[in-house]
Amino acid sequence: MDRLIEAIEDKQNPSVIGLDPTPAVVPAAVMEAYSIEVEENVDTDDNVEATAAAAAYFEYNRAIIDAVYDIVPAVKPQIAMYEALGPAGIDCYTMTCEYARSRGLYVIGDVKRGDIGSTAAAYAHHLSGFNGSDIWYEDAVTVNPYLGSDGIEPFMQAAQETDRDLFILVRTSNPSSSQLQELELASGEHVYEHVADLVESWGASSIGRFGYSRAGAVVGATHPEEGARLRERMPHTFFLVPGYGAQGGTAQSVAGMFDRNGSGAIVNSSRGIIGAWRSDERYSDEMEPEDALAIVAENARAAAADMRDQLRVALA
Amino acid sequence: MDRLIEAIEDKQNPSVIGLDPTPAVVPAAVMEAYSIEVEENVDTDDNVEATAAAAAYFEYNRAIIDAVYDIVPAVKPQIAMYEALGPAGIDCYTMTCEYARSRGLYVIGDVKRGDIGSTAAAYAHHLSGFNGSDIWYEDAVTVNPYLGSDGIEPFMQAAQETDRDLFILVRTSNPSSSQLQELELASGEHVYEHVADLVESWGASSIGRFGYSRAGAVVGATHPEEGARLRERMPHTFFLVPGYGAQGGTAQSVAGMFDRNGSGAIVNSSRGIIGAWRSDERYSDEMEPEDALAIVAENARAAAADMRDQLRVALA
Repeated sequence: MDRLIEAIEDKQNPSVIGLDPTPAVVPAAVMEAYSIEVEENVDTDDNVEATAAAAAYFEYNRAIIDAVYDIVPAVKPQIAMYEALGPAGIDCYTMTCEYARSRGLYVIGDVKRGDIGSTAAAYAHHLSGFNGSDIWYEDAVTVNPYLGSDGIEPFMQAAQETDRDLFILVRTSNPSSSQLQELELASGEHVYEHVADLVESWGASSIGRFGYSRAGAVVGATHPEEGARLRERMPHTFFLVPGYGAQGGTAQSVAGMFDRNGSGAIVNSSRGIIGAWRSDERYSDEMEPEDALAIVAENARAAAADMRDQLRVALA
Repeated sequence: MDRLIEAIEDKQNPSVIGLDPTPAVVPAAVMEAYSIEVEENVDTDDNVEATAAAAAYFEYNRAIIDAVYDIVPAVKPQIAMYEALGPAGIDCYTMTCEYARSRGLYVIGDVKRGDIGSTAAAYAHHLSGFNGSDIWYEDAVTVNPYLGSDGIEPFMQAAQETDRDLFILVRTSNPSSSQLQELELASGEHVYEHVADLVESWGASSIGRFGYSRAGAVVGATHPEEGARLRERMPHTFFLVPGYGAQGGTAQSVAGMFDRNGSGAIVNSSRGIIGAWRSDERYSDEMEPEDALAIVAENARAAAADMRDQLRVALA
């Protein structure tokens, strides 16, 4: 986790921007421009609409990355938004990761993979690449713990070999997360607390020079008290905190997830940053795509700076 | 689940072949042939080795599909094996799904996705396609329950709209599945039993004409007693049973996961079928790729027929 912590120190900003494009959050002026361009250039047996959407998503992501790379340490593309476009979306996902890397950003691939050991070993190529070449351009991935340690170990091994990290789901930000994660065990603990202890143990042999292991945890901003207790319970586990902004989390609600040095967590916001342009009255669907992207970029930078400043105040 | 059950009836065979290519299970004679071909034809800035492996995987899958499509109802490509090659592997995955469909097979995409509601809605495009066009060519996908109903509902809705299905992880086949799934709750149940009840309830509004809902369950062949109890507990839930063959499951150990009519489950074997060629002494690394694929195909068909016959005996 050292590279991420250094990047956060460098920017004095413990936040990460979720690059989660959807047809609703990418301006119509951009979506339509690429739709026309791709129709004119692509073989007819490809899925033209998906290819056009993927091209628009990439330009949108690039505009945002260019606008924020000097003030944020990391981005977190959510692969589901790209899988929604099929293989063309996957190309856009890897291009986005590669571009963010080229701008010096730490890339958290929000893929939430998880499977039995032999299969997790295949997924671990997200971190280790193929025959020594990078294929996904992620610095960390998110992983699901439902299958136990078999499904985690291959990722941990790949992380260790390639100086990368993972973030394992512990307490997710969504309302129904309680259905499974909050169940009370015979031991008196909740399921998520047991998972927290597993994560702390899975990371134990990979603790870096800031005291945090390569096995991070996903802890939603929507659970501030639980998050603060998990901070105590998991002293060597770095937190990835989703749910800020659109889902209801605030700088105050995440403050307890940081350690006494103001480290130990990175907070994600997606729609609040990448969709900030939607309240800008200068935008219209009829404008040129580059003008729309300039408005996206300007608003994303302002929203990212605002989030950074709010976190700085809350952690001061 | 009606389309799958009809396909099983039609072939009189409740088994599914896992299309899980790896460098270890695809003959070297095939891997190397495509390596040379792709090197000569691909732009240098692509990842040539991954593209070559993806081409070899597709020819291997096609040979197996052609060899078994008339005796098995379904195939289950494990997307991790394809993600291990990056975007080129994803192209191979969708081509494999599309080809299997063209041969009349029901395609279970073993993707084990799971996320918060808005993200699960994006993943549900695996089933619903993009703007009405198919992009993944899957008839069902596997889903992880750790995030609760928010993460399931978008898949259920897409399944209902497109006459497709899902299989939700309940009790996985791997050794460490016990670390989380077998925990005892304060209520006296185990976690996987609670998940089983959730799955049964998630499916309740989608029960088809054979009495099974669109929300299936993944129950590993390595847990025969638990599987038999789950069969009683989940009367409207169809089971996808991995872990047969290489992982230790047998026709006897899965018999209890079927209902009294010999329906209610489909059993997966991957390495036992697609790797059966490895004990064929006629194979050598020096042979032509088409000769190697003929040996793969012949052994896969024999192993698939053998598995079918063993299941028929165990269920008689």
